[in-house]
Amino acid sequence: MQMPLPDPQILARREEILAGLRAILPADSVISDPVALRAWECDALSAYRCPPLGVVLPRSTEEISQVLRYLHGLRVPVVPRGAGTSLAGGSMPTADAVILGVARLTGVLEVSYDDRFIRVQTGRTNLSVSAAVAEEGFFYAPDPSSQLACAISGNIAMNSGGAHCLKYGVTTNNLLGVTVVLMDGTVVTLGGPYADSPGLDLLGVICGSEGQLGVVTEATLRILPKPEGARPVLLAFDSSEAAGACVSAIIRAGIIPVAIEFMDAPCIRACEAFAKAGYPDCEALLIIEVEGAEEEMAAQLARISKIARDFAPVEIREARSEDEARRIWLGRKSAFGAMGQMADYMCLDGTIPVSELSFVLRRIAELSAGYGLKVANVFHAGDGNMHPLILYNANDSEDLARCEALGADILRLCVEVGGCLTGEHGVGVEKRDLMEVQFAPADLEAQMQIKDVFDPHWLLNAAKVFPLTVSQSRREGRA
Amino acid sequence: MQMPLPDPQILARREEILAGLRAILPADSVISDPVALRAWECDALSAYRCPPLGVVLPRSTEEISQVLRYLHGLRVPVVPRGAGTSLAGGSMPTADAVILGVARLTGVLEVSYDDRFIRVQTGRTNLSVSAAVAEEGFFYAPDPSSQLACAISGNIAMNSGGAHCLKYGVTTNNLLGVTVVLMDGTVVTLGGPYADSPGLDLLGVICGSEGQLGVVTEATLRILPKPEGARPVLLAFDSSEAAGACVSAIIRAGIIPVAIEFMDAPCIRACEAFAKAGYPDCEALLIIEVEGAEEEMAAQLARISKIARDFAPVEIREARSEDEARRIWLGRKSAFGAMGQMADYMCLDGTIPVSELSFVLRRIAELSAGYGLKVANVFHAGDGNMHPLILYNANDSEDLARCEALGADILRLCVEVGGCLTGEHGVGVEKRDLMEVQFAPADLEAQMQIKDVFDPHWLLNAAKVFPLTVSQSRREGRA
Repeated sequence: MQMPLPDPQILARREEILAGLRAILPADSVISDPVALRAWECDALSAYRCPPLGVVLPRSTEEISQVLRYLHGLRVPVVPRGAGTSLAGGSMPTADAVILGVARLTGVLEVSYDDRFIRVQTGRTNLSVSAAVAEEGFFYAPDPSSQLACAISGNIAMNSGGAHCLKYGVTTNNLLGVTVVLMDGTVVTLGGPYADSPGLDLLGVICGSEGQLGVVTEATLRILPKPEGARPVLLAFDSSEAAGACVSAIIRAGIIPVAIEFMDAPCIRACEAFAKAGYPDCEALLIIEVEGAEEEMAAQLARISKIARDFAPVEIREARSEDEARRIWLGRKSAFGAMGQMADYMCLDGTIPVSELSFVLRRIAELSAGYGLKVANVFHAGDGNMHPLILYNANDSEDLARCEALGADILRLCVEVGGCLTGEHGVGVEKRDLMEVQFAPADLEAQMQIKDVFDPHWLLNAAKVFPLTVSQSRREGRA
Repeated sequence: MQMPLPDPQILARREEILAGLRAILPADSVISDPVALRAWECDALSAYRCPPLGVVLPRSTEEISQVLRYLHGLRVPVVPRGAGTSLAGGSMPTADAVILGVARLTGVLEVSYDDRFIRVQTGRTNLSVSAAVAEEGFFYAPDPSSQLACAISGNIAMNSGGAHCLKYGVTTNNLLGVTVVLMDGTVVTLGGPYADSPGLDLLGVICGSEGQLGVVTEATLRILPKPEGARPVLLAFDSSEAAGACVSAIIRAGIIPVAIEFMDAPCIRACEAFAKAGYPDCEALLIIEVEGAEEEMAAQLARISKIARDFAPVEIREARSEDEARRIWLGRKSAFGAMGQMADYMCLDGTIPVSELSFVLRRIAELSAGYGLKVANVFHAGDGNMHPLILYNANDSEDLARCEALGADILRLCVEVGGCLTGEHGVGVEKRDLMEVQFAPADLEAQMQIKDVFDPHWLLNAAKVFPLTVSQSRREGRA
């Protein structure tokens, strides 16, 4: 991957910039020691690394506004960061950028059960939002795999999903309002807890904008009543085609379970070796979860099993207890850990039409054989959001290059069949140069003109999302 | 209401402009006869009228692109129009504007049941979208009261809702992609049928943008499987407070029915006189509908009735047959017709926190007594979307002025309690000068900068949404 060249004029003014930040913030909020900065050189896409110019960890919207106003005046790039769990390099720094972390903004500001919302500071982790309303029987629906660690700020930046999004939608469907600080320090409020704001829906543009438009410091989130019960069924098949066709048939029949998760043979075997969940040895496995009252779950599971039997399943294993349910989910939930124990991996994130599932899995197998790299597939099949994991050796730069090339081919395949480059991880640095595969020049231009409005000097999370050459010339042209 | 002054230079060039349009379109697509133009002088907010310079009714995206490119070159304002059912004057013309109607674009372009979407031209009516997929057991969820007549283009422009949006969301939650023609004629595609596009979510900005950013000619819409059954229950109360508190308690308990409709005494009496649905004579009435399998509906209705009994209902009437269900809905569905027979009315559209329902109804009663005007309330209570109907005499200009003043007071009240100026009808001409009640100058400025990007000369649906003085100076500044 090509790294952007840092601005030498900014590097030369490093000490002055850091001194200015220390004049705004308490001493413990500015990190500049080169050793300490190594902790900030990458996010969860650890293949790419670069220490930032400095890191600030403010404690309030007001402090963030002051920091941004100051850095805007000096034209210093800023990389906003939540918990740093991005798998697409969304919070990876450049050498001339200051990382602005929101990790210290973790408060709950307001809860209303009558109007079903919670207002939080965005450094709060995803899971601790649900924890704050659990006692009253409510939860926050989007559930990324990293939900124990990831911050709401990053969920909003990447429009994160999760296993249960088939039913509840992704972040944008559960986000009601934000407080956002623009690059010039202006604090703007968009949306709010009550239905539909008039005027332009800028909230939707902010969600999924990957830190390109502003730093979101507060969020109002929809909370939902916890369902009475939830129950998974495990369906095992002797081919990926059969499993894929079964997913299509379920969706086609108008059943919308809470989750439809798919694992292929390499993934099943790795998970079984790691977590010993008792999965059958088969070619493809679906975990389908339904929710609701007892009768409702029983009726839905009966319909799902009836449809599945048309695709000659090797096994249909319905959970009959809490413990069986936990064991069905155990392997799936440890998939990333299991793969990580086997090898380095790059986790892709693309979407496809559900009806193209079988074809795409076959093509991925052919492509990976061609590159001589192993790929394991584990993903949210119900909404066609794939996560192929490419196994490679991170200490071998040729292997990394092959992995990047295979990843690009797989994402091109997603676009060719009518899908998208990213489902929930974002474009980040990983996919910025593939944006031209997805978008015509006029489409990209329209997006960049919106960026111009919010961030005229192209300082926020620079060198991401848009193709590197395009965004660099844009930045230079508007400096 | 203050009318904008037409641009005399455009009026002077009327014949030239019409001749140019006739060179682009077939003869039957250009309407210029002054008598014929009277049909286009208003939409469903018929209190305000002004014949346009001309009307064009193209038959394709390509024709629309040519028309816009031509009018853009001459800097002629354009008012996009669907079926003209806007209750906020969203498609009301100005004297110097050409109306661009999409009524002739009614085709179904693609249907996929595997991937659960339909792609249509946007002149198609809302109800005929559902009709196109009904045979396979699917439907399109947003259901504005005007669904027999209103066009998908207008649904997208206003982000329309409907009685069943409590469960299924409004248009923006069911819209997957659009083809939109910008004012300079550029054709842009945003979103698509498969999950989550990368880059900025411009689809969300287009939805609800009231024709300010472009003309949407094609739309990809989410279709859903029809539920197995649906059943309403009618709950009658002897005070609006009790009914409002009951709605809060149901939402608070985590029950999300498909619809919770509210009618107050003036509305109940008018509907009963008109439709003879057999409603009880009471102060407030809720119609709550649940959906699903038999056991599911029975269980939900039992929970709802149990909660309702805490608020001393006068009557709980559960539908035991199709015919009883139809009769429960009959009065509600004829509410607008019933009011129209009694007097002229202005239908407001604001949202409030559900928890403020009782307080807001009491304040509306006090305000309307102060102005000496009758107000009937009928609305979607579950999501706090109110539709107060102010009765007045359209032939008495003083009465109209009082009605406007009362309407503005009621909408200010919605904003004061934390709600919004509009839930689903849009801002249009009706509420443009109230936008400053809702938004701070920086918020409005951010929205107008987005308008600058899409429509630099401020030609599309001019003199709407933004306060008149602000939008006129913007237009002049960028002419």
